[in-house]
Amino acid sequence: MGTVLLSGLHARMASSSASSKKSSWQAILVINYKAYPSAFGDKGLAIALAAEHVAEEYQGVVRVVLAVPATEISRISEVVDKAVVYAQHMDPVEPGAHTGFIPAEAIKEAGAKGTLLNHSEHRLVLSDIDKSVRRATQLGLETLVCADTPTVAAAVAALSPTMIAIEPPELIGTGIPVSKAKPEIVTGTLRLVRMINPDVPVLTGAGISSGEDAAAAIRLGTLGVLVASAVMKAADPEAKMRELAEAMAREVSRRK
Amino acid sequence: MGTVLLSGLHARMASSSASSKKSSWQAILVINYKAYPSAFGDKGLAIALAAEHVAEEYQGVVRVVLAVPATEISRISEVVDKAVVYAQHMDPVEPGAHTGFIPAEAIKEAGAKGTLLNHSEHRLVLSDIDKSVRRATQLGLETLVCADTPTVAAAVAALSPTMIAIEPPELIGTGIPVSKAKPEIVTGTLRLVRMINPDVPVLTGAGISSGEDAAAAIRLGTLGVLVASAVMKAADPEAKMRELAEAMAREVSRRK
Amino acid sequence: MGTVLLSGLHARMASSSASSKKSSWQAILVINYKAYPSAFGDKGLAIALAAEHVAEEYQGVVRVVLAVPATEISRISEVVDKAVVYAQHMDPVEPGAHTGFIPAEAIKEAGAKGTLLNHSEHRLVLSDIDKSVRRATQLGLETLVCADTPTVAAAVAALSPTMIAIEPPELIGTGIPVSKAKPEIVTGTLRLVRMINPDVPVLTGAGISSGEDAAAAIRLGTLGVLVASAVMKAADPEAKMRELAEAMAREVSRRK
Amino acid sequence: MGTVLLSGLHARMASSSASSKKSSWQAILVINYKAYPSAFGDKGLAIALAAEHVAEEYQGVVRVVLAVPATEISRISEVVDKAVVYAQHMDPVEPGAHTGFIPAEAIKEAGAKGTLLNHSEHRLVLSDIDKSVRRATQLGLETLVCADTPTVAAAVAALSPTMIAIEPPELIGTGIPVSKAKPEIVTGTLRLVRMINPDVPVLTGAGISSGEDAAAAIRLGTLGVLVASAVMKAADPEAKMRELAEAMAREVSRRK
Repeated sequence: MGTVLLSGLHARMASSSASSKKSSWQAILVINYKAYPSAFGDKGLAIALAAEHVAEEYQGVVRVVLAVPATEISRISEVVDKAVVYAQHMDPVEPGAHTGFIPAEAIKEAGAKGTLLNHSEHRLVLSDIDKSVRRATQLGLETLVCADTPTVAAAVAALSPTMIAIEPPELIGTGIPVSKAKPEIVTGTLRLVRMINPDVPVLTGAGISSGEDAAAAIRLGTLGVLVASAVMKAADPEAKMRELAEAMAREVSRRK
Repeated sequence: MGTVLLSGLHARMASSSASSKKSSWQAILVINYKAYPSAFGDKGLAIALAAEHVAEEYQGVVRVVLAVPATEISRISEVVDKAVVYAQHMDPVEPGAHTGFIPAEAIKEAGAKGTLLNHSEHRLVLSDIDKSVRRATQLGLETLVCADTPTVAAAVAALSPTMIAIEPPELIGTGIPVSKAKPEIVTGTLRLVRMINPDVPVLTGAGISSGEDAAAAIRLGTLGVLVASAVMKAADPEAKMRELAEAMAREVSRRK
Repeated sequence: MGTVLLSGLHARMASSSASSKKSSWQAILVINYKAYPSAFGDKGLAIALAAEHVAEEYQGVVRVVLAVPATEISRISEVVDKAVVYAQHMDPVEPGAHTGFIPAEAIKEAGAKGTLLNHSEHRLVLSDIDKSVRRATQLGLETLVCADTPTVAAAVAALSPTMIAIEPPELIGTGIPVSKAKPEIVTGTLRLVRMINPDVPVLTGAGISSGEDAAAAIRLGTLGVLVASAVMKAADPEAKMRELAEAMAREVSRRK
Repeated sequence: MGTVLLSGLHARMASSSASSKKSSWQAILVINYKAYPSAFGDKGLAIALAAEHVAEEYQGVVRVVLAVPATEISRISEVVDKAVVYAQHMDPVEPGAHTGFIPAEAIKEAGAKGTLLNHSEHRLVLSDIDKSVRRATQLGLETLVCADTPTVAAAVAALSPTMIAIEPPELIGTGIPVSKAKPEIVTGTLRLVRMINPDVPVLTGAGISSGEDAAAAIRLGTLGVLVASAVMKAADPEAKMRELAEAMAREVSRRK
């Protein structure tokens, strides 16, 4: 019975609650570098340094996470401290004979504190999400699992990841925020996830491009936002990150 | 809000409850033809006719479902009446330009009443399971979604399929029944699925080869069994199906 | 050395030449049913019966091949005789424990004489194309392997399929024929394929919608055309097939 | 015609010949780090430093290539100079919105000079190998494409990669060298590849574990070896690399 309990919903929830740092931050800003030209080399480092500034300014209030390409994890991890580095993906394999695959150990060794999983540009087999969340959790890595519909988010909640991001794929990269175009997708997701696994925070993704969008994400009840092009293609990425962080910080302080 | 409600957990549960035939059968015997040599042509038809006999004998008690290869759905559907034909897979696409893919409409047109999904030999992307269950439900098709662990079963429950089968892949085809080797996987699955979506029945799969195994599956609280090699490789498939049905029928009558 | 020779280029070319029916037809019209609404049930059967008429009329000149959904192979095979039935895909597995996969034996048992492989809507792993061509050839099934570029066609030629279709994906379904928009892709493919495996005929696909397009395909040096929407969405599919066949028949007679 | 010529066999061969460094080395030793525990962090760096020693010793005779995990490319590239760093895989995408995928630009920016592709543990869609070889070549990156059979190697030759490795998957990791167990697979591959694209060198992979195996690979006519576990699991990786390099160096000097 032991192994089932350990692998079961409540057991995993318990262990993930234990290691969570929820108390230390009230909102979250996740930057998905994707494979944009600005994601690599000096450009990617410059955005990371800018993120570090924003993370310092909003320390204790808004956590800043950078989901960077696998090839950039080690270089970016060396230059940030307050900002947190995630991978964009990891493979559900153990270390061994797996040419071209990236086990949890690889991203941890390179300096990542967690990983995105199941982004709509990189959809995963259900059992592989289960295995990846399990392996990441065992190694103390966080998981932010993306979902394209409220029911998918509900399914993901049963796997007890650290966080879930709801991202309707038809809005990704459009600049039309889900929080405005389809707020019921966000609130529907929150309702289902809370029924199944109330300890898993939900993030709002897809189309987030302004402070107003980020504030709306907080008002709807999510913990923060997952953004990509709004920052990675910005003329001034630091100003854009600060705008998003500031809007969320204001919203959470208003809430008290 | 409407679309979310429609796509939401409770709405889908409601509609699937409405169309369910739970009242008409107390146990279920699902035969997965796989791609065994006996699955095709006259051999596949002979097993279907044998299944029809068993389905007649246990009518109202044990439902018999045949999950057959895509190429055999139409021929087998023509010769069975009490036994029910399922596909082994369907693709999450709408009719259109999808060379070599099988939409829900295709299996329905050919005579299938439902489909297996996400068998451990054919694992699916989470979002595709969600879409497939949704599309099948819209067309009045049943879905039996396989899960390899209790947490995967919990995730699947959130998608409101007609049924879930728990099949630890390491036991498939071994003749070592999960109900004996790892009963806690079955009971752990039942516990999690009931927490999330209590209306979704669970089946026991993997290693089921005897009446005793089938009876144990009922005793553990599942609705029946998903078997493959035990029937498809049997010297006398009809006798084997009768053995499995009889054991489950005895077990459910004892329960009353 | 024996097995390598058997699996080698020349050995396979030799055996495929031996079984080829090149002498019996001078042009080919392949209709890809895809998963269009008209592909299934009575509609699919009606198009097959219409194709049978065209196949009878042009017997000995234009071969008519119908690439139909897996679920329709057996029903359509029963009603055609001069027209030939292909699958749209097959999986590179041997009969056995492969839930939801379709081995060569399955399509052969259902009545198919061959299969499409690697359509741009259903791209395959290189080694799986190799295995599928090998398995199909062993069972006496033909293979029509699609390629999206001349170099991919050259690579496919090395696997010695029965035929190759060049289909630039950006033109599929557009009604803009590759033979007009990019004739150099067709001639470039012919040049490379002839260098590597001169016995493998090439077909022109993508955007073929009129007799003129089909005639151009013959003039460019290919054996015929692979069409889908032009027939499957036609108000009068029989008239459209006759138009395409007639144009090719005229072109080949002019050539003599 | 221009684009076809550019994408055609001879044009690509010409450009790859132009940039090849064939004259500067007579044999090649490729170490596939895979995802072995010794591939990451300090252990992976230590093996790279050892490889650098061997590369220095055999400079001008045996080229040493390290195919390392994506997360390690930048760190290892910084510490080696004579030894060359490859990725184990790259994705056929252009920079842009591709979460968790690795474009050619990413591995180049991190310091890689080339990449493995299509390893039997990471098999690729044919069109994606074509695209990846094309994109890598455009960026000046080398490609070492793996093949599991002689006909697959022949197909790969048509795509004009920098090199091809023949690796029968059933021998990988066994310590049974293909050069001994199935030399006809190596010679059959050489024969087919030379027919199609004589400028593409072939490497021997699978089961190579001793200097004798490496010498046999040279004697059979291949340019060198692709090894993994023999080095990555060795008690003394440097000694093992030296053994392999020395055996090949002796063999090539004998040949003159």
